[in-house]
Order: sequence, then C-alpha cells, then structure tokens
Amino acid sequence: MELSARDSFCPHFQKAIELVGKRWSGTILRALMDGPRRFSEIASHIPQISDRSLSLRLKELEAQEVIVRRVEPTQPVSVSYELTAKGRDLESVITELERWAHEWVAPPEERTERPEGAIGAELGIP
Amino acid sequence: MELSARDSFCPHFQKAIELVGKRWSGTILRALMDGPRRFSEIASHIPQISDRSLSLRLKELEAQEVIVRRVEPTQPVSVSYELTAKGRDLESVITELERWAHEWVAPPEERTERPEGAIGAELGIP
Repeated sequence: MELSARDSFCPHFQKAIELVGKRWSGTILRALMDGPRRFSEIASHIPQISDRSLSLRLKELEAQEVIVRRVEPTQPVSVSYELTAKGRDLESVITELERWAHEWVAPPEERTERPEGAIGAELGIP
Repeated sequence: MELSARDSFCPHFQKAIELVGKRWSGTILRALMDGPRRFSEIASHIPQISDRSLSLRLKELEAQEVIVRRVEPTQPVSVSYELTAKGRDLESVITELERWAHEWVAPPEERTERPEGAIGAELGIP
C-alpha cells in the first residue's frame, strides 16, 4: 500500500473511517484525548447518548484495541477508560477534524478564537 | 468555542464526524482528493457500493457544500464531481486517517513503503 495512491480503494482506510465514524465513536475518542475518564464522565460529556449505547461503543473500541478499560479497586469499584497507543495516535485525526469543524461548521460568531490572528484578517486589518 | 476544550461536548465536531463518517462518505471524499471524478470512476473506486447508495451519498455531500456536481455538455452529457474549498480542506483529515490506517490497520507485510526508512528498522538495521 502506498500512502498517496488514492485511485484505488483502500480497505484499511475504509476500516479506519468506519471505526472512527461509527455513531458517537469519534466524540468518545475526543473525550478521552485529554486523559482517562470514568464511564459517568464520558456519559455526561455526550448528553444525547444512552448508557446502553455508550457501553456498546466502549466495548467495540476496546475490542479494536483503541481504548482499555481499567477497574480500580475502590469502594465501590470505579471503572475508567483510557486510550491505548493506537488510540492516542488518532489525536492528529481528531485535531484536524476539530480544526475543520471550527472553520466550516461552526457559525461565524463562534469563530473568534482563531490561533493565527484571523480576527484581524476578518476585519480587514493586515 | 475553543479548539482545545475537549471536556465539553462540541456539536460542531459531532456534525463534522457524522458528515465524514457516514457509510462510504470518507472513501468518496478520498477518491476525489486527487481531482474531479465521474460518477462511474467513483463507482469503480468503491466496488462494494451500489449506484443508488453512491448517488444518495453524493447528493448529501453536495447538500453539505463539500462537493459540487458538474454537468458537461458532451454527447452524451458527462457528470463529474469535484471538491469545493470546504471539501478540499478535509485533505489533512483524510491524510492523517490514511497514515493511521497504514500504521495500525494494515497487516505488517503491507507496511513496507514507510517514508522514514522503517524497512531497515523492521529488519533490525539501524
């Protein structure tokens, strides 16, 4: 497989986009980018998701070795989820998609915190 | 919206991942990264997709202003699809996901064309 050969179908790319693109999976991965999170923390991060759906997605991501589930022997036991090296390596994908969403999906009034001083550019200031 | 604030749900990110992650959409976008393609060229790029599904996905991507549909007045008319500026700006997302798929999804025997001379590393050559 050559990285730049886009004139042929790539089953690995297809598998990767299906993994990241499955409903809520990308947002779950994004929630874990800053460190381990408990089930309840992820659930509160995604208000629309049911516990059942979240549980299913976490199991799938664990089966894909993108995250690991840790059970801490507290009282009551606390379960947390953490990215593996494979999962952490998706950070550039998540970051680029965040950048794109910020640029093209967010309404203009939310585009004020641009890193490259684009506020000036928008106002016509060089 | 702050780009790095990942402790709260971002509806724009969710919308972006749903757009790119919808079945076949990522692979359709990847097929268009190197330039405009006709319907039949995209269809042959993704052997598993039906014409009906491809047509539906293209309409959705057009509605999201990620691609444009061009009808050329040839005999018979030829229809081609091209990325808009919004669509082209997804290239970094696609590229990063290709890199990740190459690194983590492709079987080891397909990981020979590594840009950083990793063939030597795999063979134990410094």
